[in-house]
Amino acid sequence: MFRIDALIREIEELSAGKLPSTPVCGAENLTVRTFAPLDHAAADTVAFLAQSKYREEARLSKAGVVVMSQADVDAIYGEAGPDRPVVITKNPYAWFAYATQIMTRRPLPEAGIRPGAHVDPTARVAATAVVETGATVAEGAVIGEAVHIYPGAYVGAGTVVGDNSIIYANAVIYHGCHIGRRCILHSGCGIGADGFGFAPFDGEWVKIPQIGGVTLEDDVEIGANTTIDRGALEDTLVRRGSKLDNQIQLGHNCRVGECTVMAACTGGAGSTHIGSHCVIGGAANINGHIEIPDGVSLGPATSLMSWHKGEKVMSGFFPAMGHREFERAAVIVMNLPKMRKQLKELEARLAALQPNG
Amino acid sequence: MFRIDALIREIEELSAGKLPSTPVCGAENLTVRTFAPLDHAAADTVAFLAQSKYREEARLSKAGVVVMSQADVDAIYGEAGPDRPVVITKNPYAWFAYATQIMTRRPLPEAGIRPGAHVDPTARVAATAVVETGATVAEGAVIGEAVHIYPGAYVGAGTVVGDNSIIYANAVIYHGCHIGRRCILHSGCGIGADGFGFAPFDGEWVKIPQIGGVTLEDDVEIGANTTIDRGALEDTLVRRGSKLDNQIQLGHNCRVGECTVMAACTGGAGSTHIGSHCVIGGAANINGHIEIPDGVSLGPATSLMSWHKGEKVMSGFFPAMGHREFERAAVIVMNLPKMRKQLKELEARLAALQPNG
Amino acid sequence: MFRIDALIREIEELSAGKLPSTPVCGAENLTVRTFAPLDHAAADTVAFLAQSKYREEARLSKAGVVVMSQADVDAIYGEAGPDRPVVITKNPYAWFAYATQIMTRRPLPEAGIRPGAHVDPTARVAATAVVETGATVAEGAVIGEAVHIYPGAYVGAGTVVGDNSIIYANAVIYHGCHIGRRCILHSGCGIGADGFGFAPFDGEWVKIPQIGGVTLEDDVEIGANTTIDRGALEDTLVRRGSKLDNQIQLGHNCRVGECTVMAACTGGAGSTHIGSHCVIGGAANINGHIEIPDGVSLGPATSLMSWHKGEKVMSGFFPAMGHREFERAAVIVMNLPKMRKQLKELEARLAALQPNG
Repeated sequence: MFRIDALIREIEELSAGKLPSTPVCGAENLTVRTFAPLDHAAADTVAFLAQSKYREEARLSKAGVVVMSQADVDAIYGEAGPDRPVVITKNPYAWFAYATQIMTRRPLPEAGIRPGAHVDPTARVAATAVVETGATVAEGAVIGEAVHIYPGAYVGAGTVVGDNSIIYANAVIYHGCHIGRRCILHSGCGIGADGFGFAPFDGEWVKIPQIGGVTLEDDVEIGANTTIDRGALEDTLVRRGSKLDNQIQLGHNCRVGECTVMAACTGGAGSTHIGSHCVIGGAANINGHIEIPDGVSLGPATSLMSWHKGEKVMSGFFPAMGHREFERAAVIVMNLPKMRKQLKELEARLAALQPNG
Repeated sequence: MFRIDALIREIEELSAGKLPSTPVCGAENLTVRTFAPLDHAAADTVAFLAQSKYREEARLSKAGVVVMSQADVDAIYGEAGPDRPVVITKNPYAWFAYATQIMTRRPLPEAGIRPGAHVDPTARVAATAVVETGATVAEGAVIGEAVHIYPGAYVGAGTVVGDNSIIYANAVIYHGCHIGRRCILHSGCGIGADGFGFAPFDGEWVKIPQIGGVTLEDDVEIGANTTIDRGALEDTLVRRGSKLDNQIQLGHNCRVGECTVMAACTGGAGSTHIGSHCVIGGAANINGHIEIPDGVSLGPATSLMSWHKGEKVMSGFFPAMGHREFERAAVIVMNLPKMRKQLKELEARLAALQPNG
Repeated sequence: MFRIDALIREIEELSAGKLPSTPVCGAENLTVRTFAPLDHAAADTVAFLAQSKYREEARLSKAGVVVMSQADVDAIYGEAGPDRPVVITKNPYAWFAYATQIMTRRPLPEAGIRPGAHVDPTARVAATAVVETGATVAEGAVIGEAVHIYPGAYVGAGTVVGDNSIIYANAVIYHGCHIGRRCILHSGCGIGADGFGFAPFDGEWVKIPQIGGVTLEDDVEIGANTTIDRGALEDTLVRRGSKLDNQIQLGHNCRVGECTVMAACTGGAGSTHIGSHCVIGGAANINGHIEIPDGVSLGPATSLMSWHKGEKVMSGFFPAMGHREFERAAVIVMNLPKMRKQLKELEARLAALQPNG
């Protein structure tokens, strides 16, 4: 059970003071068991009004407490103010996220290196960290406080993992990489494999060793089976607060700015720089050596060859349609140059008919 | 060596009685060593006529036994009936699949937990299961009869793996998931990583814990390095008999119906529901919150934003062409609105010329 | 520190004599610490002129030694010849690649099977090989000289790994596969999972066992989390010298010729054959049962359904544009058949106006 006043205090703490909230009508003294959707909420739950279109559901909700913005409070209850327990905050959805973090938190497993974990004698593992069965921490690696390394994960030689990070099962971090604090690396991701660099010679490909590493700054999350290649000379870099979904691929020397989100199955080829506060849609693929400015969005399934200056959102994928219509449209696409030529000829002929047209 | 009559009995059993077959001309007493293509078959092999266009090859085949449908028997041998050993069945291709299963079956390895496997004392592992070196079964997990867990695989806390399932090397199943019976999970897949859920707040992204799990019903196959995220509140679900190829990504709360096949490299964003008996082409990507009805097909490399009601097959990808032609066509695609405008102007001018046209 | 004359000898050796080089102006007696870009090079470094447009940078470079072609020497220094230490070779970029290999080479770790590695007693591991903690080598596998198997990697029953190959952490090679010499398999790749083969029967899918394997010839590199399925009957094959980037998927019975490079996130469906000396762009996807001839290039993000005879480069993806422009263009693409019809009607009407036009 969670006391609302305790939740409010802890959310303020977790958000570094950025998300205060005010209990009214006795909300502060209530206790809830869990959270629930507005329209399925019992008296021992807390519910959230995240979008104004659900004001009526909020008004009718049987939740013990409803979290909402001042604007929604005003719209629902008017000058009289709420007649039921409410928590007022500027961002109920973020309040929900923090509250869920608190309410679903499980105690850290007992600290220590489990039997069957493989930790090189030259590695430094903080006393509060957990290294589970079958995980390997190679020579010279440094594992911070309260880090949790799941079974089968691999931390390469000299790699540093910052405090409070979680490395899930079978994730791989090659040698010489830097993982920040509070990072989450999901299962099967591969951080620091060789960038794809070869010199063509006499019909063959001569490997160019990749001597950079990968740096993930604080609060970065990496999805399952995502791969981020080490840099050719300097580090491939993902800056603080960015979140990468599953099966993303970043080539050597890519850079991702702060607090950018990339949806699943996207790819960035070598040396591409994605700005801060960008939103990259799923299955988009981005060519190499491109600069994507701060604060823009790339649509899903879009193949980007260059960012068009001034655009806020770029997109492009062939529209799906009934199969026979698609086949007809595809043939015409292939013949568009011919079609444009026909159009120009028509224009010319018409102009000849209408000399002053 | 395999007796044909024994094969026939076992296929009937494996198919739960749905695939009976009839030996004629002494086929039942024959013994074969292996299967072979019609035109390269020796006397100690069984061959299959799966498509009627190969009737002539079947007639001439030197295979000891040929499996075919009654219609093909009639077409090849007429009223006289076969003059050589034949097995008649309604689906020779499925007969081939079952027969191959039987003929290539290897004995289960000796049951037990191998030295170097890590099984938590609170986990329950059936006596007939195999847990190999370096695999981990976490606290409270339940491993059914004759399950085979390969080296390095991970079964998280409280996860249940049903009887006769195979978990290949380095596959990862997070905590709180349910894997049905006779499932096959290939190497490196990741079942139950966190869904991609964040609340935007003050330019940052606040993680929303994902407290659902993943349920795979019976007879589901998951390809190598495929990832299926756990649900936000309820389980992400793949229903019985569906087959997913390699490197597929399913976001949180996706649902896949029964007996649907998804080819490699496809992606389904969060909360998308794919029906039963669908065929999803390779490299297709499906937006979130879409409903795909039962029994339809999605073409390869298609980006689906919504299913068009009534369509049986939807497709859409830019046609590949010679590079210079592509460059010309791409420029015109970008200018299609202008081209349409020109066309309308022409129509108007022509109409002005032909007032009664 | 590296003597230039020793580097020259070793590069000639590594290239099997194909890349000789000539030191002039005393370059042979110099010693360098590392390599550097032309314009940031100190006296103890070697720099490379790989593209003629940087001749001026080469002339001004403070590097101890500059590597360049005879043509660039002639263009920069004319008849007088170089007045500073220079190494002349026909391919400075390949010289750079080889030199980097030599200069960044680390000593092999001590040979042997580490405690915590799981090697079946029937496997044969060369005395010079390294098998690290948590790796598994299954029954009957054969590991060649100086092979390095990283933690958590899995080599299946009967699989052969050729001399000097590197298998990175958590890579998986199923049973019955053949890996050549000097191959590099990056983390999390999956070699030899079952091909995606099922017989449709009564609304369900009957698995067809995949009894081929995978053969990678010598000098093949496989990127992180790339998957290559085993063949249905014969082996899936990647021929010598080909390089595959991360997150590539090759279906059963694909064949890739010699010295072909495939960029990340590409996919080849079953039974597709890619020629030798091809370049496959990132995120391209190739349909099944296609033949791609030798020496051609496939553009990035291109969906290939068939190779158009005679083409050297094929491409095709929807061009990215501003989002609203994209939406307008996409609607027109879906209506292209109607637009073509309008164009034809216009032509007919105009022809009626101009009977002799």
